[in-house]
Amino acid sequence: MKFNKVVIFGVGLIGGSFALALRRANAVTEVVGYGRSETNLLNALQLGILDRSGQEKNLAAEVGDADLVLLATPVAQMAGLFERIAPHLGAHTLVTDGGSTKGDVVAAARANLGDRIAQFVPAHPVAGAELSGAAAAGSELYQGKKVVLTPLPENSPAAIARVRKAWELCGAVVSEMTAQQHDDVFAAVSHLPHLLSFALVHDLAQRENRDQLLSFAASGFRDFTRIAASSPEMWRDICMANRDALIRELQQYTAELNVLHQALESNDAARLEEIFSLAREVRGNWTQQ
Amino acid sequence: MKFNKVVIFGVGLIGGSFALALRRANAVTEVVGYGRSETNLLNALQLGILDRSGQEKNLAAEVGDADLVLLATPVAQMAGLFERIAPHLGAHTLVTDGGSTKGDVVAAARANLGDRIAQFVPAHPVAGAELSGAAAAGSELYQGKKVVLTPLPENSPAAIARVRKAWELCGAVVSEMTAQQHDDVFAAVSHLPHLLSFALVHDLAQRENRDQLLSFAASGFRDFTRIAASSPEMWRDICMANRDALIRELQQYTAELNVLHQALESNDAARLEEIFSLAREVRGNWTQQ
Repeated sequence: MKFNKVVIFGVGLIGGSFALALRRANAVTEVVGYGRSETNLLNALQLGILDRSGQEKNLAAEVGDADLVLLATPVAQMAGLFERIAPHLGAHTLVTDGGSTKGDVVAAARANLGDRIAQFVPAHPVAGAELSGAAAAGSELYQGKKVVLTPLPENSPAAIARVRKAWELCGAVVSEMTAQQHDDVFAAVSHLPHLLSFALVHDLAQRENRDQLLSFAASGFRDFTRIAASSPEMWRDICMANRDALIRELQQYTAELNVLHQALESNDAARLEEIFSLAREVRGNWTQQ
Repeated sequence: MKFNKVVIFGVGLIGGSFALALRRANAVTEVVGYGRSETNLLNALQLGILDRSGQEKNLAAEVGDADLVLLATPVAQMAGLFERIAPHLGAHTLVTDGGSTKGDVVAAARANLGDRIAQFVPAHPVAGAELSGAAAAGSELYQGKKVVLTPLPENSPAAIARVRKAWELCGAVVSEMTAQQHDDVFAAVSHLPHLLSFALVHDLAQRENRDQLLSFAASGFRDFTRIAASSPEMWRDICMANRDALIRELQQYTAELNVLHQALESNDAARLEEIFSLAREVRGNWTQQ
């Protein structure tokens, strides 16, 4: 399978790596990129990610004969993008996305794509990194990583299969679930940990003695807070987009902290050890798939 | 400077690495090890960490002519060790430790060492790892890492200098503060993050769909929870030993989570971005020293 033309909106880590991975698989003839930053698009051209930078005046033509459009911007921008591309999508053009949340992206698609909704097959490539921009992209990003598709009832089996194949050509292991299931799962294992990591660094950042504190932080702190160096804009959008599930997770986590607080207050060393032991067992047996 | 004889109680990651590092620096003639696990002591002998495994009946002799004793067990066992060695310490024997908390260790020393208290120079090597046992030890563990001494008013400058030198020979960068300062700093940058990481994994571990959740956890989760694979016993002891400071940190962190909760509830995206941005800036500028 080969795509004659792929158009990418947002040529950063996710979009740029998608282009490079398809090129590496010899699965695309032409890649066109749109984005807000001219500097980043120039970078992407120089890095061989793009064949050309798309012009706004040519949007209808670029999208009209594309085989595949990838939306790889922060999720909050996707509604506007669906609106821009909706009138121009060719009859055979498929659309997928790289958003870390799915319920909001599906809602934005439904609100803007009209009778083209069947052409959109939502996707979440689980390949986060704290880096951003075209310079961070690489053809290996998706190798062995998970991509979750959350197909719509309107999608044809052929459309789903074709979008699945595109991600598989990038090296990804593709699975499917509903958008709601997706958002619940990722609130727990991704969105909440990011929120907690940002919170810890923010807590320390406001202290008078923060320089002293940070000078004694070591490898535990380093790993715990790696994700606090993630893009604030992207994570603001993810948190807002998956607000309800994230609030539920935050409440459950706060209840968990209350249990630990009580154990400390009541000198209950056995309870602490019990909690730590189950956590160690589960974490020790976990391997990234 | 060379130590004729070093006696180590607890030949695990910390104690074993201390021995290997001194050997590598050609700074020790003989290393004797005591521990609860015969298997681990045999391991340590085979790995060249120890010259011999200490016998209980020879404790007085082994400690009596040692230049340096290192207590590298979980902190809760140190009171018992101080009691065991106190009657036998030679006049020139210095004692240091590898405990991650200092207030409790100093209290245990004061309660048990009597007029030998001046011979104890407390230390915290900031070189944690989730591994344990002699097999995890390595001569490079302390290279470039921080060691914090929390000297006692009773310590002579010569005793402090000699213990400082021992850690420096292991490759460490040594600094000094009071035990209280130490415990406040490490509650914030080490003990709290460990508690939070254990809490997240424990929270997920209790769910019916934990296998599904964990199967979609990725690199953010991996790094955030690396420290949740740490020794439950060791961290139980640390949390209990530094209970007051840890409770204060936990309360402050819970307040921080309440701010985030409120921002989510009130759809305050700007506040989220503000918090994430400060965190990213501070974490981005931080480098492990």
